[in-house]
Amino acid sequence: RTGRGGKGLTGNSGTGSNVSIALIHHPVFDKNRRVVTTAVTNLDLHDIARAARTYGLFRYFVVTPIPEQQQLAKKIGSHWLEGFGGSYNPARKSALELMKVVTSLEAVIGDIEESFGRKPKIVATGADGRPGSIRSSELAEMVKDLSQPYLILFGTGWGLADEVFKLADLTLEPIVGAGDYNHLSVRSAAAIFLDRLLGMR
Amino acid sequence: RTGRGGKGLTGNSGTGSNVSIALIHHPVFDKNRRVVTTAVTNLDLHDIARAARTYGLFRYFVVTPIPEQQQLAKKIGSHWLEGFGGSYNPARKSALELMKVVTSLEAVIGDIEESFGRKPKIVATGADGRPGSIRSSELAEMVKDLSQPYLILFGTGWGLADEVFKLADLTLEPIVGAGDYNHLSVRSAAAIFLDRLLGMR
Repeated sequence: RTGRGGKGLTGNSGTGSNVSIALIHHPVFDKNRRVVTTAVTNLDLHDIARAARTYGLFRYFVVTPIPEQQQLAKKIGSHWLEGFGGSYNPARKSALELMKVVTSLEAVIGDIEESFGRKPKIVATGADGRPGSIRSSELAEMVKDLSQPYLILFGTGWGLADEVFKLADLTLEPIVGAGDYNHLSVRSAAAIFLDRLLGMR
Repeated sequence: RTGRGGKGLTGNSGTGSNVSIALIHHPVFDKNRRVVTTAVTNLDLHDIARAARTYGLFRYFVVTPIPEQQQLAKKIGSHWLEGFGGSYNPARKSALELMKVVTSLEAVIGDIEESFGRKPKIVATGADGRPGSIRSSELAEMVKDLSQPYLILFGTGWGLADEVFKLADLTLEPIVGAGDYNHLSVRSAAAIFLDRLLGMR
C-alpha cells in the first residue's frame, strides 16, 4: 500500500480506513428517470463528511462534472478548513478534511488506485431492489480485509443512473424499514449504510 | 389501546408503530453549554420525517416553544401535504403526515398517552456517554412489545440539556464509529438509531 497518510486523511489505519464513499451528481436520474446533473448542496457535504469521519473512512468524494459546482463544493470545504470556520468548529474541519471534489467516477477510482496500489471494489447503492444484490452484513465481512479498498457510491436526485450500476462490482440491497416506503434522503441512507458496515453496536 | 388510526398516521400497526421520535429545539445546549432554543430547519423536518416513515413510526414530533417557529414548521409541512407539493411528490407527503408540531415535551407525552392509553417510555440520546446507558440492541428488544409506546428524543444544537435526561426513563449509548469522533448531524444520528432499532438487515 503506498501513499497513505497523505493530505486529507485522518491517520486512521483500522476499521473503515479502506472504505471511501462518493456522492454522485452525474449521471443520476431525475424524477422522470432522465439522466441529469444535480446541484451540490451544502448539507450533503456536511452531513456525509461527518458520517464518513465518524466511521473512519479513507475519503469522501464529491463528484460533479460542472466546474462551477466543483468550485462551490471546494469553497464550502475551505470555509471550514481555513481561517475562522476551522477554529470556530474544529470537528467540522476534521470531517471536511476527508472531502475531495472530483470531476468523474474515473477520477475517484484513479485517486484510490494511486493511494492503495490497487483498484477499489465498486459498490452501488439505490432504493430499488436489483437482482444479485448483497446484504449489508455480507459487505461488512468483506471490508474487514483492509488491503482491499472499497468505494461505495451514492446517487443524488432520484438515484444512480443505470450506467453506474454497470460499472459496479457489487450492489447493496436497499434499506428496508417497516413497509415498502423507501424514500430516505441520500444523507440518511449514507449514514445508515456506514453504520451497518462499520458501526460498533 | 385507544385512538389509533387517527389523523397523521400511516396505518402501520406492526414493527415501529409504538415508537415516536421528537426533535427538541428547547431546552438544548449551544456550543458553550448554555441552554438555548434553536431554530427549526427545513431539512431536519424532511430528513427525519422520511426516516420516521421508512421505519413505520407512530409520530414525528417537532418541539419548539416559539409560536413563530411552530408556524414555520407547520407551513413547511402543509406545503407538502396540500395542493401542489402533495401531488408533485406523494412520498414527501406521506412522510410529513407523521409530523406534529408541539410546544413542549409535556405536550408530546400527552399526545402519546391519549393515543395509547399509556405513558411512553422516554429515551434520551446524545453524543456523550452517560452512566447507565443502554445499547441499541437492548432497546431493539424492548420496542418489540407493541403495547408499550416509546418516545425517543433527539436534541438539536449541541444536544439535549441535562433536564431532559432527568426526565428520561432510558438513555441510549452514543453512536461509536472508528474512533472518538462523535459529531454526527442529528439527521444522521436519528436515521442510524432508527435503523438499529427497527431496520431489517
